[in-house]
Amino acid sequence: MNRRELASLAGLGAVAGTIGAGPLKLAQAVAQQAPNNPPRLQVAALIYPRMILLDLAGPQTVFNLMRADVHLVSKDRSPVMPDVGVPILPTMTTAECPADLDVLFVPGGLDGTVVAMGDPALTDFLADRGSRAKYVTSVCTGSLLLGAAGLLRGYAATSHWYVRDLLADLGATPRAERVVVDRNRVTAAGVTAGIDFAIEFARQLRGDEAARLFELVLEYDPKPPLSAGTPELAGPGLTDRVLQIRSSVLASAKDAVAQAAQRLKI
Amino acid sequence: MNRRELASLAGLGAVAGTIGAGPLKLAQAVAQQAPNNPPRLQVAALIYPRMILLDLAGPQTVFNLMRADVHLVSKDRSPVMPDVGVPILPTMTTAECPADLDVLFVPGGLDGTVVAMGDPALTDFLADRGSRAKYVTSVCTGSLLLGAAGLLRGYAATSHWYVRDLLADLGATPRAERVVVDRNRVTAAGVTAGIDFAIEFARQLRGDEAARLFELVLEYDPKPPLSAGTPELAGPGLTDRVLQIRSSVLASAKDAVAQAAQRLKI
Repeated sequence: MNRRELASLAGLGAVAGTIGAGPLKLAQAVAQQAPNNPPRLQVAALIYPRMILLDLAGPQTVFNLMRADVHLVSKDRSPVMPDVGVPILPTMTTAECPADLDVLFVPGGLDGTVVAMGDPALTDFLADRGSRAKYVTSVCTGSLLLGAAGLLRGYAATSHWYVRDLLADLGATPRAERVVVDRNRVTAAGVTAGIDFAIEFARQLRGDEAARLFELVLEYDPKPPLSAGTPELAGPGLTDRVLQIRSSVLASAKDAVAQAAQRLKI
Repeated sequence: MNRRELASLAGLGAVAGTIGAGPLKLAQAVAQQAPNNPPRLQVAALIYPRMILLDLAGPQTVFNLMRADVHLVSKDRSPVMPDVGVPILPTMTTAECPADLDVLFVPGGLDGTVVAMGDPALTDFLADRGSRAKYVTSVCTGSLLLGAAGLLRGYAATSHWYVRDLLADLGATPRAERVVVDRNRVTAAGVTAGIDFAIEFARQLRGDEAARLFELVLEYDPKPPLSAGTPELAGPGLTDRVLQIRSSVLASAKDAVAQAAQRLKI
């Protein structure tokens, strides 16, 4: 990513001393700021049924430490039910979402992503806001949705390992990396990669010291108990089993990608 | 942890073939089961204002893969606002919570934890359910709340690094580990440790293969961008800065621990 572009967005660096103060301290610190301080980062996170809450919660925690306004955007104001039993209340509709955003963010959750890819109201919204957003970002299968909106043509990108190669059909260059930064597109691998994404994103916008502070505050020194988080680590047996278990929705994803590619004339 | 105890709880192992099917497939698979299949794991997660959503979302994702019923328990039915802007709707009140649980789970979030430690309605609830729950568990500062309920006396335990030593004042033996298992108490370090906790917990209850499957489905191959997630990794400068930023709430935590210790006659 172009460091100069990022630096220009990172106007909040002037108050970096308060960045790690924790959500509440932070909110207070912000409230006490003089009105001539730089505006808060405007983030729109698309939320949709069957998305994975963790895809949102990881990045949202870090956006919060970055003192961002995170708008939870849905087609209407109804609560959105993700994979687990915490309904998410939208804070605005797609129609209400500001035209010019700092960050457009799309979480994943394959079952929901496939449905969303076939909904022009959502892909049109993403195509429009994504065309002007300073950063276009995703976690997990969220990148398929960005791709279906035509936002990854000509970009390197990643996704959950089991759909990553489908990105090529949407005009992107798939990369088997945890977080892929290509100009202003920042995409991440499956589910838990949302935390790596968010800290890397914070590093790019706020610098190394702020990102190190966030890691320390969130005690981010992960220790996967089994070391089986990728097909390479898990081996072919377990990988085949996941592919088999998910075969039906993976077939639907392939169809949805083909339809999107046709629509986009890729 | 006693493997035999765990194995006896892990009756769902008979349907291990469906465990990694993903939330939706899983729900369908469960719905299709004959009624004489083993009961679902009953988990009560205490939710309280200013808790950290990520502390809950990580474990909840894995509990969901384990086909657990996760009850979100609060003093009343009002939505609970965590650190970020996703209000959590309780699914039951403390009064409605089943007397006998498989798992009692407490997330953290220091500002909220300190307030909750001073609320007898919450500590009495935890002491009661924790006295009979098969497993008593926490992420981050949630262990202070377990300790304030007298549930960690004589147990090894951990917490967020910046309050870990306070556990000693509540009768526990603090350990600087990512996840600490001592008999039926399973406690985890700060925030992001919730994912390690949940996968280790799944491993103990469902075995290595199921836990490996969960890691693969969640693509849990974390790559912290900065490697600064503990005081040892971050160094004294950054650590002191966090301690200074959080000094006010850390002082309140110390007071709350002292009061709880006095009440518990520790």
